[in-house]
Amino acid sequence: MNIDGIPTRTLRARPAQGAIDIIDQTRLPHALHWLRIATLEAVAHAIRSMQVRGAPLIGATAACGLAIALADDASDTRLAEAAALLRSTRPTAVNLHWALARMQAVLQPLPPGERAAAAWAEAAAIAEEDVAQNMAIGEHGLRLWRGQLVPRGDTLNIMTHCNAGWLATVDRGTALAPVYAAHDAGVPVHVWVSETRPRNQGLLTAWELEQHGVPHTVIADNAAGLLMRAGKVDAVIVGADRIAANGDVANKIGTYLKALACADNGIPFYVAAPRSTLDFACTDGADIPIEERDGDEFRLVHGLDGRGVPSALRLLPAGEDVANPAFDVTPGWLVKAIISERGTCPATRAGLLGLYPEEARG
Amino acid sequence: MNIDGIPTRTLRARPAQGAIDIIDQTRLPHALHWLRIATLEAVAHAIRSMQVRGAPLIGATAACGLAIALADDASDTRLAEAAALLRSTRPTAVNLHWALARMQAVLQPLPPGERAAAAWAEAAAIAEEDVAQNMAIGEHGLRLWRGQLVPRGDTLNIMTHCNAGWLATVDRGTALAPVYAAHDAGVPVHVWVSETRPRNQGLLTAWELEQHGVPHTVIADNAAGLLMRAGKVDAVIVGADRIAANGDVANKIGTYLKALACADNGIPFYVAAPRSTLDFACTDGADIPIEERDGDEFRLVHGLDGRGVPSALRLLPAGEDVANPAFDVTPGWLVKAIISERGTCPATRAGLLGLYPEEARG
Repeated sequence: MNIDGIPTRTLRARPAQGAIDIIDQTRLPHALHWLRIATLEAVAHAIRSMQVRGAPLIGATAACGLAIALADDASDTRLAEAAALLRSTRPTAVNLHWALARMQAVLQPLPPGERAAAAWAEAAAIAEEDVAQNMAIGEHGLRLWRGQLVPRGDTLNIMTHCNAGWLATVDRGTALAPVYAAHDAGVPVHVWVSETRPRNQGLLTAWELEQHGVPHTVIADNAAGLLMRAGKVDAVIVGADRIAANGDVANKIGTYLKALACADNGIPFYVAAPRSTLDFACTDGADIPIEERDGDEFRLVHGLDGRGVPSALRLLPAGEDVANPAFDVTPGWLVKAIISERGTCPATRAGLLGLYPEEARG
Repeated sequence: MNIDGIPTRTLRARPAQGAIDIIDQTRLPHALHWLRIATLEAVAHAIRSMQVRGAPLIGATAACGLAIALADDASDTRLAEAAALLRSTRPTAVNLHWALARMQAVLQPLPPGERAAAAWAEAAAIAEEDVAQNMAIGEHGLRLWRGQLVPRGDTLNIMTHCNAGWLATVDRGTALAPVYAAHDAGVPVHVWVSETRPRNQGLLTAWELEQHGVPHTVIADNAAGLLMRAGKVDAVIVGADRIAANGDVANKIGTYLKALACADNGIPFYVAAPRSTLDFACTDGADIPIEERDGDEFRLVHGLDGRGVPSALRLLPAGEDVANPAFDVTPGWLVKAIISERGTCPATRAGLLGLYPEEARG
């Protein structure tokens, strides 16, 4: 990825400083602000407050958080408590749990004195794998589209929801990886960017597509169905926060409505996610915990005031009753294919086990 | 309807002053501001800018606008030009065209000297009929619900989209009329209020439900599907801007997505609208013109700043490409029933002609 033409990543580890640098995503698209984070508590806060967000990036950031936590005290107790704190920040995205379990499995057998350095090394490995997997998702996705999609016009019109681009990962993105692969291969592509209320992550997507030079148009979430009925959408692709063993997909609230509209209009609905998003221990989407976030995320909205200064406005009185679930579950039968770093498969148990046969044991 | 306990209507004709008083709905829910409007151009502006909105209220307001226009000059030319100006303000809601056609049919045969007074009288009749029809819609809707709905809990959980309450009509509302009828009859009812981006008319609905004492919860448009899958919605009811002869329904953008989610979850989806919303000349929903509104409605958001002062924030840069269609079309097969002042019917040509047999001619 590039910001203003300069290659970078969303997560920069600074082992020598016992810190990481992240982009404060709560300030995008209005300001690009890098944040240095040097304590376990600040990492937990960054994940909870969505300064860092996107299932794969949350996983990699939590891994770094564990490394930060072990700098002064790498005892068994500290390791367990730090992992528990990080694990408690967000309930739905399983990548967080996956990354922490992987870190603990590596660190636990080591003597405490070796754990901090090993933690930074393992966190770096997680981050590198994320980038490589996303590049592979991009290639698999593009190959699938070349086989399955016949654009109605000169341009491939792809719709996405929320942000599953490089801002949601260490680099390249999941849902946007095939978009970037297409664009980079010279395939004319245009993206319908759904605003994604209440946190407006669509504006992050618009910002990163702009950085990459990909044509796009922002729409209200409500407009998705009309555009599909009007024949203006060739495919929808989203990321995921957790995929159950039966192919049900938990993703940003509103995803399910787009999948329904795809089904009603014969438009393929794709989910792009790496292995770390698959939860084979979760047999059914109904078992995925759905995070309910603070109502003020909804009552307040953030932007720039008339002088271009970042500011917040109140849309609703503090006392107004609000429900703010952050994710919904799309049943696997609405998903045309899951695209992972291993390839593509139907959103079924058999399909997922075809890609990951090692999970069939037990 | 009551505001702060005082009975009122959304549209007050002031024939002696050649004016009308309206509530400036662009300032709700933050401020209740009555606006006196005394010129044709100001009426057209009020409709275009959505100071006045809601298909039935637009119709009644346009009728008054014609009366205002004829005060100084009631010639054939003036009548035709005023009607044309008002007709051009909004393309989708057919009530506007219906009201203006009705006014012209009454006024055209009269000598110019009698037209202004007759216009005020006819506009008043349109307004009174709107109220009576909405009361009837409320009774028919409640009767239908008593027959068809078995609440899963102690409370009837109704979801709505946009605002089709008394703010969208002269009084009582269309979609909310059965809600008010249920509440007034002692049926425990709770309303899921969809925010309705980009213009946030859900906040108008929350405000008017609060005035009437009806329990409600505001949600992001994206949350509708999750709530339905979770069994928290007994029915969805919306108003309409135009219903084609085959039962297809044009309504606020996002309506179609809610109808799809109803179908997928076995939840009845109702449309409440008076005769003036039916367009028998329009054979199919695909023929309904869909208004595309200014992108700044989407790029900017309005609310209260930290000191409680009405203010606007910029969500997106002025140059960011935006699509802002204001309505979508829900195919009749997704609609469980249409509720009109005559009763209820399937959303089909046969169903509509059953209620309005006089339209079968020709």
